[in-house]
Amino acid sequence: MKLPLRLHYAPDNASLIIRLALEELGCAYETVLVDRAIRAQDSADYRRINPNGLIPAIETPHGAIFETAAILLWLDEAYPGALAPHPGNPRRGDFLKWLIFLANTVHPALRMTFYADKYIGPDAKLEAALRARTQQNIARHLNTLDAHATGAVFGAPDPSLIDLYLAPMLRWMALYPTGGTGWFDLGQWPALYAITRSMDTRASTQRIAALEGLGPTPFSAPCLAAPPVGSAT
Amino acid sequence: MKLPLRLHYAPDNASLIIRLALEELGCAYETVLVDRAIRAQDSADYRRINPNGLIPAIETPHGAIFETAAILLWLDEAYPGALAPHPGNPRRGDFLKWLIFLANTVHPALRMTFYADKYIGPDAKLEAALRARTQQNIARHLNTLDAHATGAVFGAPDPSLIDLYLAPMLRWMALYPTGGTGWFDLGQWPALYAITRSMDTRASTQRIAALEGLGPTPFSAPCLAAPPVGSAT
Repeated sequence: MKLPLRLHYAPDNASLIIRLALEELGCAYETVLVDRAIRAQDSADYRRINPNGLIPAIETPHGAIFETAAILLWLDEAYPGALAPHPGNPRRGDFLKWLIFLANTVHPALRMTFYADKYIGPDAKLEAALRARTQQNIARHLNTLDAHATGAVFGAPDPSLIDLYLAPMLRWMALYPTGGTGWFDLGQWPALYAITRSMDTRASTQRIAALEGLGPTPFSAPCLAAPPVGSAT
Repeated sequence: MKLPLRLHYAPDNASLIIRLALEELGCAYETVLVDRAIRAQDSADYRRINPNGLIPAIETPHGAIFETAAILLWLDEAYPGALAPHPGNPRRGDFLKWLIFLANTVHPALRMTFYADKYIGPDAKLEAALRARTQQNIARHLNTLDAHATGAVFGAPDPSLIDLYLAPMLRWMALYPTGGTGWFDLGQWPALYAITRSMDTRASTQRIAALEGLGPTPFSAPCLAAPPVGSAT
């Protein structure tokens, strides 16, 4: 299957998750940089693709899709079985529940620590309170994920979409917000650490890491992005 | 297709969304009350089904599934085309992106207004600040949804899973938190109001409304639940 897909991305943004999936699937795609330095995600042109002004979005022959998990599910349906159990497989429910848990609980919580002002208004004290409590919540979610990384739907040698979604989020927890990551120690979660180590060795990871300036161990021992093109923040 | 499904529910909780889907699909299912009055969702028994202690969860022949959107997607795969465009259909991407937008943006924001203490700690001032800002954000999300309710994947006479997910959330916005719903006026969003009017007429809605004590117009003109069994909060 060959689709003229166009991924709207910024380096080290949530588009990284989609890019990993596209590379793992061997899917033909083009990239279009969303230049965060000039807040291109808020432009009228970009909002025609994603009215919420969030990255990523992907243009497909059937129109634009946004929301990370929606794009992953759409790709999964285009390449059934490649990165997740087939529909009807006894493990399919496990796959869906953990994918949605990442999408509706872990990912939004991460955003709340990065962009606390959007959730509680621009007020340093309020933002700090929200960030602190949210980081406690995320640690609890990581405990749950670590206990359930059985290798059946995530944590296996061949990564699933869950691993591809989780590894970049673990990266961002280690890096952002700058100066506010003291709560995070990946060594506390050995199964999740193993996922990042495994993900670091993927050819897909290494290709994207070079293109987006993510360094040699972007998931298990990350450093801030130094992208050759575009801006991560 | 007949599955021995067991829905763990509480009246007027997110399990309502799943129950609507099960009724619309004509799917055989049993219900198991999670008694919130004694915080049964925190019991060891329930946490074996959903380690996050959230309602709903559903037991299937392949194990337990939790997360509202995950259960909806799993049902959609068991009954392809019944309540959403088929995989591969040109509208499938639209369906997935709005489903995930409800799941990862609107639904978490609602939870933040109901259970602000879980997101910022038990502090009346902090909770009020979080709730106020979040309600502003939800209003913006409703503007977006209202503008995109084209009838193709939601807002059509025959409801899709998006309508089934959205109508209960609009109900809860009107009702909760008690005394803190002044921001919400469904008349501001005519396309969404039309969805609630249409959803109110469904036989599935009327059956569940009787069982969970939701009144005659649970979505377009809701009143607090008076469930014959169990507790909504």
